[in-house]
Amino acid sequence: MNARPPESSPPSFDEMRRILRALPGPDQEAVTRVVEREGQLTKPAGALGRLEQIAEWLAGWQGRAEPRVERPRVAVFAGTHGVAARGVSAYPPEVTGQMVQNFLKGGAAINQLAQAIDADLRIYELDLDHPTADFTRGPAMSETRAANAMAYGMMAAEPGIDVLCLGEMGIANTTTAATLCAALFGGSGADWAGPGTGVRGPALERKIAVIDEALAFHRPLIEQRDPLALLAAVGGEEFAAIAGAVLAARMGRIPVLLDGYACTAAAAVLFALDRRALAHCLVAHRSAEPGHARLLEAIGHKPLLDLDMRLGEASAAALAVPLLKAAAACHNGMATFADAGVSRRAPG
Amino acid sequence: MNARPPESSPPSFDEMRRILRALPGPDQEAVTRVVEREGQLTKPAGALGRLEQIAEWLAGWQGRAEPRVERPRVAVFAGTHGVAARGVSAYPPEVTGQMVQNFLKGGAAINQLAQAIDADLRIYELDLDHPTADFTRGPAMSETRAANAMAYGMMAAEPGIDVLCLGEMGIANTTTAATLCAALFGGSGADWAGPGTGVRGPALERKIAVIDEALAFHRPLIEQRDPLALLAAVGGEEFAAIAGAVLAARMGRIPVLLDGYACTAAAAVLFALDRRALAHCLVAHRSAEPGHARLLEAIGHKPLLDLDMRLGEASAAALAVPLLKAAAACHNGMATFADAGVSRRAPG
Repeated sequence: MNARPPESSPPSFDEMRRILRALPGPDQEAVTRVVEREGQLTKPAGALGRLEQIAEWLAGWQGRAEPRVERPRVAVFAGTHGVAARGVSAYPPEVTGQMVQNFLKGGAAINQLAQAIDADLRIYELDLDHPTADFTRGPAMSETRAANAMAYGMMAAEPGIDVLCLGEMGIANTTTAATLCAALFGGSGADWAGPGTGVRGPALERKIAVIDEALAFHRPLIEQRDPLALLAAVGGEEFAAIAGAVLAARMGRIPVLLDGYACTAAAAVLFALDRRALAHCLVAHRSAEPGHARLLEAIGHKPLLDLDMRLGEASAAALAVPLLKAAAACHNGMATFADAGVSRRAPG
Repeated sequence: MNARPPESSPPSFDEMRRILRALPGPDQEAVTRVVEREGQLTKPAGALGRLEQIAEWLAGWQGRAEPRVERPRVAVFAGTHGVAARGVSAYPPEVTGQMVQNFLKGGAAINQLAQAIDADLRIYELDLDHPTADFTRGPAMSETRAANAMAYGMMAAEPGIDVLCLGEMGIANTTTAATLCAALFGGSGADWAGPGTGVRGPALERKIAVIDEALAFHRPLIEQRDPLALLAAVGGEEFAAIAGAVLAARMGRIPVLLDGYACTAAAAVLFALDRRALAHCLVAHRSAEPGHARLLEAIGHKPLLDLDMRLGEASAAALAVPLLKAAAACHNGMATFADAGVSRRAPG
């Protein structure tokens, strides 16, 4: 279940921008057919609420009038962060690699959650032995490194998958998420930072100060409003990989479930480039990390679940898969009023 | 999957009251063991949010430190309502029986949802050919009929089930739910009524007037504050059966998932008798029916899902089962910090 980067030369940021200019839309015919059938099913109109919208969304992005959730993949991207040396996390930086080993041995939450939905779980390690640079004093990584990471992430969107759950692991990456969100959408460290794995009081104040330091250092770049440049400057490798996976899924007709704060922040880089770029994504869960609610507002997404989780690892994305399965099962399997001989409501 | 009432003589309301005086509490030792193990698992403390609370809740009510969600049952109770003749629903009364046939043939939403979670689906028909009386002019049913229906519902809580999903079908039963809630918790028709299957405008005004008429008729009884008497007077057979199922599940160490408005209103009769009576229940979903939010407030329950559904049939209860499975899977399957060799956070 482990995967390593390809040898061939990856696309550059310019190629990513070219892909973004030609984003495919949903299959409108599939959506129309779903809406038509939905109105015939043995239930009051609209009574399945968001499940009905999910069925339309799945059909539109899968390009099939019978949406299917039989081959989910869970892709977890792990990256290491130079800014971790600034003491912004409750855990030491080596926990990233230790947790990757835990994923590979089956001991983490995501292993249990992926198994529960019968998903193909893949762990994608970025260059864990070489953390990105501390972005308070320079760019986190070069554009080439960020583009390589995006290309690596694109591999997760393989043909045949019918939903892609994305998530991450990276000690200090809620600091990265907060800095990236502030750079993309404005605001300060205090607006976007939260406890992450559990920093509170003076430690949280320090985390906020580190974010503000990074924002001050990169202010000239931030004012250029180039989201991919900001991804390299104040992002992380797993963020770039997730952005690549989201983009490749769009091209490959694979609906995406985004996990929590860091994952959504990574995808938001694409939103900042094109407001339609996340139409094939649903956000699985509103994280307990407070910046996530603000980010969901910024990108106009309403999450499926709200269970006070803040783990990452694609845990909430996997947890939301049964809702998609249920939506498809109801849509495909229910009888129509005519088939079942059930009286329809009186007109008017 | 169909089931019919027993022949033997059922318990009376007095016997139900005796059971309520001896409600068992959770297994505190199982809860303690779950909390201890939870703190050792490879994740930041609290990072799985409500899944952690669910694991404790399951363990406490199942009486086992390794909670298990392998044998879910979905029980749907169908009843017919005399008040339907007052035109309070968008659908004609015969739809109750037609939908029961649809359940038995596998064409309804709950069939697809029960199959998706590999649940044992049982449809319990109350006396569908004999609707309860129109409760605006007298009691809906006798205490004996209500006690019989409770006893019938108790059969759903069979040993060996590890979670019981409860739901209902009954044209006009959001009118019944609203009337019962107002009788139990105060307020008027306007406070508790909503569109149900889709009544709006003047039709909704009529529905509210019917509820207020019933509340005026039964005012002397309402002031006696006897919840079981109110269940007979302004409830329905499926409401009594659900109350019976909730009570029997408590005695049999089976955690319960309550579905939507009518189902929660039925369970609320027990809450009105004893505020601890629903501690072994979780509410699966906040219904789009507005009275449900008010009812959740009254009984102090926070639902697991909020997906704008308003179907009934135990649909939302079944949809929430994967959350329980996930909670149990994470709790039982995750590695501890010690097992996985993952560093714990620095103290303080």
